[in-house]
Amino acid sequence: MPDPIEFYFDFSSPYGYLASTRIDALAEKHGRAVTWRPFLLGVAFKTTGQVPLVDQPLRGPYSRHDFARSARLLGVRFQLPEPFPFPSMAACRAFYWLADRDPEQAKALARAVYHAAFALGRDVRAAEAVAEVAQPLGIDRTALLAAVNDPAVKERLRRETDAALARGVFGSPFIIVDGEPFWGHDRLEQVDRWLATGGW
Amino acid sequence: MPDPIEFYFDFSSPYGYLASTRIDALAEKHGRAVTWRPFLLGVAFKTTGQVPLVDQPLRGPYSRHDFARSARLLGVRFQLPEPFPFPSMAACRAFYWLADRDPEQAKALARAVYHAAFALGRDVRAAEAVAEVAQPLGIDRTALLAAVNDPAVKERLRRETDAALARGVFGSPFIIVDGEPFWGHDRLEQVDRWLATGGW
Repeated sequence: MPDPIEFYFDFSSPYGYLASTRIDALAEKHGRAVTWRPFLLGVAFKTTGQVPLVDQPLRGPYSRHDFARSARLLGVRFQLPEPFPFPSMAACRAFYWLADRDPEQAKALARAVYHAAFALGRDVRAAEAVAEVAQPLGIDRTALLAAVNDPAVKERLRRETDAALARGVFGSPFIIVDGEPFWGHDRLEQVDRWLATGGW
Repeated sequence: MPDPIEFYFDFSSPYGYLASTRIDALAEKHGRAVTWRPFLLGVAFKTTGQVPLVDQPLRGPYSRHDFARSARLLGVRFQLPEPFPFPSMAACRAFYWLADRDPEQAKALARAVYHAAFALGRDVRAAEAVAEVAQPLGIDRTALLAAVNDPAVKERLRRETDAALARGVFGSPFIIVDGEPFWGHDRLEQVDRWLATGGW
């Protein structure tokens, strides 16, 4: 079986959320698995000199409009949480803590966090909020809260974010297929074609 | 007949070039005309705080790769000129000088400038270079060179660029369909659907 495709995203990214609703089915069509890799986009912004889209003159109002319009086109429920953008360390740490033991459960948590943040518009910054989202998945609340404050888990997220930057990942979503990089929810059609053809 | 769709672009924009090869056929499918509106993206960047994509860490190398990959997918010839990005005042002024008298000839000039810059990789900064590109279209060289230095034409370009910003245009290409804004070559499929359905 060929290598999994890599799906990099920030939990505070609406376009990452939209991609998360499609990426596994898209890969599966081509017999591929998907490795999910949340990272801290804010760290990448320090390198690229970017600030969040919604905080930029002209681009901010447009992007809010485009998030909702793109979601409607996909038939995906969408609501921007407040505050937005938000720090997503707790969700990222909980993800990597689970990922080592059960990648599918980590992915289920990521989907649940994205759903809470961008389908329901909930505030998922706090570890407690992430634990609440995790509970219906059978993830132990006390263990999750401990993991989010575990220095080893914090270090793991730092390493994952550094590794993402080292691979040239600077946006969310960012998908790598056999070494080929694609930035943006609006490149999923190209990802689909690349998987089908091996490139052009 | 419904209103034309508006196609805003900068002559130094590779994604504007890609869109320019498709926008008229796309509109025509839906019985629409296209008003072409070149403007100076650098002026918009002063408002949004952006710098050219290719000058940004991480995003620069990716974008060069993506320009060429997107062009190959469309089957459109592509070569980045040197220097890039480049100031495009001369081409813009020549365009608006022609546009008042013959919009179709202005559009033909725009296509020829884009082709020279991004299919052939030629340097089209100088008024002389624009005049050379214009010559096969039957556009008088001396008149064009005079127009590019005409204060009224210069003022016209300033007004067009200010008007673009006032409408919220901050990128290239930027397409407005019945008041609905779409930023990016990667939104042409959405433009197509919007024209077909009137929105979603």
